Amino acid sequence: MTITDAPIDAPAADGCCAPEADAGMPRDEAERLAKVGKALGDPTRVRLLSLIAAGARGEACVCDLTAPVGLSQGTVSHHMRVLAEAGLVEREQRGKWAYYSVVRGTLEQTAAVLRGL
Amino acid sequence: MTITDAPIDAPAADGCCAPEADAGMPRDEAERLAKVGKALGDPTRVRLLSLIAAGARGEACVCDLTAPVGLSQGTVSHHMRVLAEAGLVEREQRGKWAYYSVVRGTLEQTAAVLRGL
Repeated sequence: MTITDAPIDAPAADGCCAPEADAGMPRDEAERLAKVGKALGDPTRVRLLSLIAAGARGEACVCDLTAPVGLSQGTVSHHMRVLAEAGLVEREQRGKWAYYSVVRGTLEQTAAVLRGL
Repeated sequence: MTITDAPIDAPAADGCCAPEADAGMPRDEAERLAKVGKALGDPTRVRLLSLIAAGARGEACVCDLTAPVGLSQGTVSHHMRVLAEAGLVEREQRGKWAYYSVVRGTLEQTAAVLRGL
């Protein structure tokens, strides 16, 4: 019997039972969750997200977000960009001000991935 | 009428309608979610978590985690410490090896917080 006769799922010769390299979550899904995780990985961004979610019609003007977190508009805008790039908020320009709304789908999807682990 | 006669919930003199500083998620809850987010904010850690969750009895030996992610045991152990500090995994030493299991409660709680935003 040659090595090519071994069944595809035969254990490795050294008896190793380590998970396969492609086991667990697919790489692209892991990267998506990590991007959301990174965006949520800052208490100020979490508070900004919760302030928007608690706002009238689930949205908030960036001009109303600076006071509650005690930061400059530039810093708040930076945090909002990170949240938007992770798909957690959507931005809409209305005249002078940017308005942000929470993307429920991303929150739901992230919660489902965590529960499905 | 003096300033002290004003009702407690009267609008500020400048008519500002910005959310209160204590609006949104409480600071300690935001910090808890941010810690979990930060731990999840790396694709390798997400894959490690999913590999453990997919393991027999929902646990895995650190010795079986290095090959699937293609990293040294030292690097994997560092990632595992971050996951453990965020309460996402629990560590148990068995002889020579550390075994890790997923903390379902933390995943459930995080999912619930995201859905409740």
